[in-house]
Amino acid sequence: MKRTRTTAMKEHIGERVRVQGWLHSLRQLGGINFLVIRDGWGTAQAVAETPQEIAPLEQANAGVESIITVEGRIEAMPQAPGGAELHDLHIEVLSPIQEVLPVTLSKRNLKASIPTLLDHAVLTNRHPQRRAIFKLSSAMLYGFRQTLLQQGFTEIQTPKITASATESGANVFKLDYFGRPAYLAQSPQFYKQIMVGVFERVFEVGPVFRAEPHDSTRHLNEYVSLDVEFGFIEDHFTVLEMLRVVLAGILTTLKEQCAAELELLRAEVPAIPEQFPHIHFSDAQELIYKLHKVDVRGEPDLSPQDEQWLGAWAKEEFGSDFLAVTGYPMRKRPFYTHADPQHPEFSNSFDLLFRGTELVTGGQRLHRYEDYLTALQKAGLPLEPFEHYLEAFRYGMPPHGGFAIGSERLLMQLLGLQNVKLAATFPRDLTRLVP
Amino acid sequence: MKRTRTTAMKEHIGERVRVQGWLHSLRQLGGINFLVIRDGWGTAQAVAETPQEIAPLEQANAGVESIITVEGRIEAMPQAPGGAELHDLHIEVLSPIQEVLPVTLSKRNLKASIPTLLDHAVLTNRHPQRRAIFKLSSAMLYGFRQTLLQQGFTEIQTPKITASATESGANVFKLDYFGRPAYLAQSPQFYKQIMVGVFERVFEVGPVFRAEPHDSTRHLNEYVSLDVEFGFIEDHFTVLEMLRVVLAGILTTLKEQCAAELELLRAEVPAIPEQFPHIHFSDAQELIYKLHKVDVRGEPDLSPQDEQWLGAWAKEEFGSDFLAVTGYPMRKRPFYTHADPQHPEFSNSFDLLFRGTELVTGGQRLHRYEDYLTALQKAGLPLEPFEHYLEAFRYGMPPHGGFAIGSERLLMQLLGLQNVKLAATFPRDLTRLVP
Repeated sequence: MKRTRTTAMKEHIGERVRVQGWLHSLRQLGGINFLVIRDGWGTAQAVAETPQEIAPLEQANAGVESIITVEGRIEAMPQAPGGAELHDLHIEVLSPIQEVLPVTLSKRNLKASIPTLLDHAVLTNRHPQRRAIFKLSSAMLYGFRQTLLQQGFTEIQTPKITASATESGANVFKLDYFGRPAYLAQSPQFYKQIMVGVFERVFEVGPVFRAEPHDSTRHLNEYVSLDVEFGFIEDHFTVLEMLRVVLAGILTTLKEQCAAELELLRAEVPAIPEQFPHIHFSDAQELIYKLHKVDVRGEPDLSPQDEQWLGAWAKEEFGSDFLAVTGYPMRKRPFYTHADPQHPEFSNSFDLLFRGTELVTGGQRLHRYEDYLTALQKAGLPLEPFEHYLEAFRYGMPPHGGFAIGSERLLMQLLGLQNVKLAATFPRDLTRLVP
Repeated sequence: MKRTRTTAMKEHIGERVRVQGWLHSLRQLGGINFLVIRDGWGTAQAVAETPQEIAPLEQANAGVESIITVEGRIEAMPQAPGGAELHDLHIEVLSPIQEVLPVTLSKRNLKASIPTLLDHAVLTNRHPQRRAIFKLSSAMLYGFRQTLLQQGFTEIQTPKITASATESGANVFKLDYFGRPAYLAQSPQFYKQIMVGVFERVFEVGPVFRAEPHDSTRHLNEYVSLDVEFGFIEDHFTVLEMLRVVLAGILTTLKEQCAAELELLRAEVPAIPEQFPHIHFSDAQELIYKLHKVDVRGEPDLSPQDEQWLGAWAKEEFGSDFLAVTGYPMRKRPFYTHADPQHPEFSNSFDLLFRGTELVTGGQRLHRYEDYLTALQKAGLPLEPFEHYLEAFRYGMPPHGGFAIGSERLLMQLLGLQNVKLAATFPRDLTRLVP
């Protein structure tokens, strides 16, 4: 008999089928045993009305998480998960488990502190809610790539071991490369810009490494960055519009592919407006002064409180969960940032706020070789470590820009998770290197 | 005027359009100037019949690789690349380049030694043949993912920084993780197995790091691994069949999406048979003895010469570019390898040969906790570094297996490249850390 997936049971009502997976739970109620079997896609309920039917479990002393095969007849049952359940069972135990689980998987919510949950991620990742998060993560990557491929982008893979620290030299992991020092990539920034010279429109999905000694709910020391860079732009507004298209593509994919997961997590996918509302950095500071009587004018950056206020204003003013703040001061942006030609103390860059918290940073980059020489000098940086990067600009680069989305952080904010570590299968932080 | 991509010119014959990109080449022939403009997707020819038309290039002293905009009327021209060319030109120089290129990009073939080509990868990656390779690489990832998603797999991302060396402790890059030693992942092997416990069917596309001190044409110290692992298999033949489906999916995608690139590189995509022909390791040794009078019987592995002989035999016997050699001796396989239940000195594993060279290794893994304890003891390995990995097996794992494809090596072998470094945008080897 061919195996039927738990999620396909409803299509086989009245048939006898074979389901395989983990014994997710087993409970007795008035002489009847209710089994839940979990496979890679979902769960199914099986009902054993006689002791003979569950005898194989008892003989093998098979507890939860045992690997079992259950043959049975599918009956429609509106109250059961998936609208169907198995009856008249023939159970076989492939791999019996007698261990007591450190964390119960069969309850609707995982009852464990975050450290315990992460210590036992090998096991807790099997919980339906954890699986739903990672299923959404997978769909997010799918939506990201599909949208960009439709926009004429090419996917690239660039090296994660580099000869010099990417941007600042701070917060990089150092390693021994055959006796020479090398560093883990903080971002594919330089490589994606170089590859704009090759394909014009490129994206990359890959790990980045930040040796930031923060222990916060918003930081990971290794995360998956969704990087986009493209040429022949007008300015940072071209980049912002591409970001809007990409986020819309991701969210549409989540709704199409993960309705069950979103429901399980009680998450609501926000609407993406036709255009992101936007406000210039200095106007944002004026607005905060006007609305809240707090004078942050002249500050080089926005505080979390400022961002919260602006998010609330965007919601009220435009009914939008999103707000782009443009034109951040040049002095707080990296050396490759393109200045606003009219007001060179401000940059052609933006932060996209989502519900009052920074979600994505992006903008226009310098594209002329001479401008890079000036910018590096101004930043007090030597030329030598940037030799190969600069080669791209010596030999012709179009106006270009891009953005980077931290995939775990996007998921955290969409789902309202309390800690970004919950959005990673096996997170890395200051003290956590296992599992 | 909206921009038209070079690859879409044929759809606009008779219209006046705007093309933007790099000045790929400029040559004069009998008073007429022929320009080739390269954009992110292809190249287009433009014909300047009057000196006025190319005057902007001369005024700006704009040489090859300058960024230009060319407006013109499209005429059908069967001899021109893409079957059309631009006439009656209006040229604008966005960014003039006066530099002499270290490597000429406008010739059909790149005339440079491999070291020179790689030293200037920032520039040489712009050459149409190099672009074709990376376009194929992008399509390969697309075909890999699409095929697996159709087969019910979930994409995962697992950490690249680990607390202990993945398999053997040899050939790993060591790094400083906030004062503690850590290692770069040699493979996602343990994590993908753990995630079979979560989703049954998983795949990952990500970098892996091998500190192998080889300087060969077949090794990279960082490469992109295409990893697959799935549960509820019969044995290694279930895995081999999935590999066949995946390779067929990749090759179909290449043919569908990259016909122009394959033609440019004069590459022929091999046919995937309905089933891979296969031969047991010991039968293969017998066959070599019979055909070539060389006695390798009892050797623990096949030599490159052995693989060549077997590849030639498969071609003659089955008309197949592929041959699976199954049942390699256990003593040369990693500890998690599942033995052949009938002949425990041999393994339930395989190497897939392509045209007489090893392409992919895969097989069935152990799935019972007790079997892991025995295997680790036999291999003389301590339990402690494997504590979290073993947790997956303590709490129930189905029979499972998988394989890993080195993406650059697959591309090298498909295209007949002389060096695997030519299949990477910015390769890393013993001495190469830049660009």
